[in-house]
Amino acid sequence: MITLPRGPQPADFADVRATNLAVVLRYVRGHVPCSRADIAAATGLNKATVSSLVADLIERQLLRETGLTENRIGRPATMLVLDGSPYAAIGLEVNVDYLTAVAIDLAGEEILSWRRTFDGVGSAPAQAATAIAALGKRAVSRVTKEGRRVLGLTVGVPGLVAADGVVRLAPNLRWQDVDLRDRVNRALREPAYDVNVDNDANLAAIAEARYGDHAGTSNLVYLTGEVGIGAGIISDGRLLRGARGFPGEIGHVQIDPAGPACGCGRRGCLEALAGVNALVHKALPDSADDVITDLERDVAEVVRRAKAGEKVVLTALEEAGKALGQGVATIVNLLDPEVVVLGGYFVPLANWLIPAAEQELRERGVAPEDGTRITASTLGHSAAAKGGAATVLDHVDAGNLPER
Amino acid sequence: MITLPRGPQPADFADVRATNLAVVLRYVRGHVPCSRADIAAATGLNKATVSSLVADLIERQLLRETGLTENRIGRPATMLVLDGSPYAAIGLEVNVDYLTAVAIDLAGEEILSWRRTFDGVGSAPAQAATAIAALGKRAVSRVTKEGRRVLGLTVGVPGLVAADGVVRLAPNLRWQDVDLRDRVNRALREPAYDVNVDNDANLAAIAEARYGDHAGTSNLVYLTGEVGIGAGIISDGRLLRGARGFPGEIGHVQIDPAGPACGCGRRGCLEALAGVNALVHKALPDSADDVITDLERDVAEVVRRAKAGEKVVLTALEEAGKALGQGVATIVNLLDPEVVVLGGYFVPLANWLIPAAEQELRERGVAPEDGTRITASTLGHSAAAKGGAATVLDHVDAGNLPER
Repeated sequence: MITLPRGPQPADFADVRATNLAVVLRYVRGHVPCSRADIAAATGLNKATVSSLVADLIERQLLRETGLTENRIGRPATMLVLDGSPYAAIGLEVNVDYLTAVAIDLAGEEILSWRRTFDGVGSAPAQAATAIAALGKRAVSRVTKEGRRVLGLTVGVPGLVAADGVVRLAPNLRWQDVDLRDRVNRALREPAYDVNVDNDANLAAIAEARYGDHAGTSNLVYLTGEVGIGAGIISDGRLLRGARGFPGEIGHVQIDPAGPACGCGRRGCLEALAGVNALVHKALPDSADDVITDLERDVAEVVRRAKAGEKVVLTALEEAGKALGQGVATIVNLLDPEVVVLGGYFVPLANWLIPAAEQELRERGVAPEDGTRITASTLGHSAAAKGGAATVLDHVDAGNLPER
Repeated sequence: MITLPRGPQPADFADVRATNLAVVLRYVRGHVPCSRADIAAATGLNKATVSSLVADLIERQLLRETGLTENRIGRPATMLVLDGSPYAAIGLEVNVDYLTAVAIDLAGEEILSWRRTFDGVGSAPAQAATAIAALGKRAVSRVTKEGRRVLGLTVGVPGLVAADGVVRLAPNLRWQDVDLRDRVNRALREPAYDVNVDNDANLAAIAEARYGDHAGTSNLVYLTGEVGIGAGIISDGRLLRGARGFPGEIGHVQIDPAGPACGCGRRGCLEALAGVNALVHKALPDSADDVITDLERDVAEVVRRAKAGEKVVLTALEEAGKALGQGVATIVNLLDPEVVVLGGYFVPLANWLIPAAEQELRERGVAPEDGTRITASTLGHSAAAKGGAATVLDHVDAGNLPER
């Protein structure tokens, strides 16, 4: 059976073979372990072609044979799995107060996961790019020492990222039109692998849909719980990209016209009511400075006081949870996801935020069933970086195989 | 070149052939006129297979040869186009104050387009189903007299429609859990063709993306301008369906917590501020009854008075336009569409609504470019019905070919 190819037609035999290699690789990824006969049956490729493609993928160390065989009528079949031991995909994230790095192998297994504090607000874009590249270099160096080849590197940023890797706007980092891809590329001395930049919420949503508690869910929205609040939207199994690549900007949707001023110049935005910075200011009016310098510590303090039952803190959490619930209700009414996953600093605060948010959703949701769940991410602050690494694997699966 | 088939595998030769017939049909739809050689080159099917498939499609009167030939090196090629003269796809819509019917041929050309007033609020679901079926019967009878066979019939409803054709909730029709598909099916005496039910905004968005001024746009949102306001969302070329089939419910997103009570029991919903009923009440406080009986007439009166420069009317339109702009800004921030198309009664009012809405969008949109346009539909009240008919063609294109 054939289906119409999308996009440009194959130009020559090499292209057809590259496409078919990718078809086999994707099939094995989805059906580990499987035999050559399984691949032939599912793809419609003849067995000789499959054998040749598999031999090529084994030579590239993308697949390997297991000792296992499947007993069926006739000859036992040797089973195939993803190899990937000689490869690594790297994801990084820069945010207001931290940098993260994650490396995964071809099968998606984590090789490393790092987080360090970083003054994203106080750093100029050039400094930030240098810091990102430095962390990237360390990750590259680590996986290289393990004998792995880097397949690519993707950087997540809390802002609007154009397809060419330029960060058009990252309000909480105070960036505008920063060509981050170019800067990181140069800092890494124009490596042979691809460097890409994407929105942090998009990448975290990809990670959540693939490696999180709700892996496999086709309709999922991830909310970044940082100083800013962004949404990554998976709809019918695909990341929603929008016309210009700027969807998911829930943080500046107005929740309350009479609400507090937002850093963006507007009033009553979701971020100004439920962003972690706003929440900490409200929960810790005595201890927080005007400029919050250590969100990690402050959030831990909010948790401590909430557990102790401090009224001011519980009220602040309930109000933030309600505002968050209003934002979630807008998302649910418009997108009808199966699950909304709260990430970042929302995770340690989830026990207090979710009940208030769920109450708002029940009141504001139009659909007759209480269908959408609100849950806390189990991937934490590494979600965006892990999603960045996952997009590198997608690039391979799409046919951009490493050279032998 | 092959790609992995989605879903179940072909069971036997007949299935493979049905799939390949659909591949050829879809290719011709997208590349009219084209030759058998074009089809073979694009699909990877060999020429003998293509000739056999084309012969089959010609016999089914889905394709026909034109007198045209393309001069190339070697033999001149006979060109193929969609035939479809013996077929019709029917779409209907029921709304608060009207019923519409549209029939199109296989190529999407309109065969008929009817609209009649209908008291959707005063009619019980059983009465409404009877009225819908009666209009459907008239349309079926008309196209049958022309010698056409009906390929299917789809009914659009302003509400949440489950995949099984049950209208779960249609607040403005006061329907809850109405099995409309079953009712219409029975009223049409269980016809051989499929009867389906879908959300009106979804169907209108499909029509707009396919036949409207912005045909071909991959990221488009359609807003129904009726008593209710629903959104149909086309994202990356596909209709967004959500987890349960209930996305696009922008009408009950809260715009102003201090706003007027909405029919849904909430306060300050977009519908309560910018729905056509609310707008007419505000613009014509002297003439409008509590229950509006003829929206068509009332909207015409609003247009007349707006043209005459009546202050009350202009203020009402500006306020509705602002509220609409807030709803559009939420949509744009979350979905980043290329264009938002205003439909229904918004069309005659567009000259007054759009400037106020655009102003709000500029103030509330997060993206640095003024990228999303707001425009009025040119398909008017027949959009949903036409979209319904289009989904029937999709069903054929997906391989459900009429029997010979």
